[in-house]
Amino acid sequence: MNKESTTEKETLIKPDKFDQGDNFKAVHCGSFSQLAQYELKHPRFGVVKPGKVFLQELVDTTAMEVSINVFAPGKVMPFSHAHKANEEMYIFVKGQGEMVIDGQVIAVSEGSCIRLAPKAARCMRNNDSDELCFVVIQAKENSLGEHTFADGYEVQQELNWTKD
Amino acid sequence: MNKESTTEKETLIKPDKFDQGDNFKAVHCGSFSQLAQYELKHPRFGVVKPGKVFLQELVDTTAMEVSINVFAPGKVMPFSHAHKANEEMYIFVKGQGEMVIDGQVIAVSEGSCIRLAPKAARCMRNNDSDELCFVVIQAKENSLGEHTFADGYEVQQELNWTKD
Repeated sequence: MNKESTTEKETLIKPDKFDQGDNFKAVHCGSFSQLAQYELKHPRFGVVKPGKVFLQELVDTTAMEVSINVFAPGKVMPFSHAHKANEEMYIFVKGQGEMVIDGQVIAVSEGSCIRLAPKAARCMRNNDSDELCFVVIQAKENSLGEHTFADGYEVQQELNWTKD
Repeated sequence: MNKESTTEKETLIKPDKFDQGDNFKAVHCGSFSQLAQYELKHPRFGVVKPGKVFLQELVDTTAMEVSINVFAPGKVMPFSHAHKANEEMYIFVKGQGEMVIDGQVIAVSEGSCIRLAPKAARCMRNNDSDELCFVVIQAKENSLGEHTFADGYEVQQELNWTKD
């Protein structure tokens, strides 16, 4: 792990295992359970938060900001927030918790996927005795054009793999 | 689960547990290990594939297409592909596998996060004895404007939660 002492970079302690090529960049953060080894400094509030890694600065995304997160048992997001331009998606990959969205409480657990419009007020907590792990993606509302099968196309590359 | 017999919809058997409000929509898909209960028909190749759920049609995203996925031990993605306009991010949440990107092999495991430019040729496999679970996000390259702390702002909503 790299330790930095700068107020410009958001991440104080961050993953340092990378793979890279002309058209990709990968970072290997280790298990979600161990994400608390990384620390993030909130630039507005100055609070150091463990367990949240933003990926944009690590792998140079241009279409989305993604974070991977762990909440310890009992942890509550410190305040509700909304967004100006960006849609958000929360994807829960382990554990159980609750979100409050515009005052409406919903139970979340592994496999819960929630799309939020920018103006939705959102907060969440881990109300379970096990950790709560999740991915958050933000991207500019209404920016998606073609997608999935219409945007993808088959290409050839050398593989020495036996197909199943 | 709902079963549909249409060639227009991509998903044949899909999750049917939802929560919804004016500014959000949630779908609860259950554990990643059980994603093989859902089936997807590839519209070009006509192949029915278990273990892949696209979220755009389920929760009405406008900025991204996201899928959640499980590969059984030994499974290989049937062909390499690239994209026309969309950046992709792969986030591995369980298991171990390999990706080949432009002919370069990289090992992936829980916490591996890979950003791919549209033209990157990509294929992957589960070369382990346990299942491989992952999230794939696609969004239009260079579409992200402000993000994270610059796009978010604090709002008030009623919460009956004790803060940690």
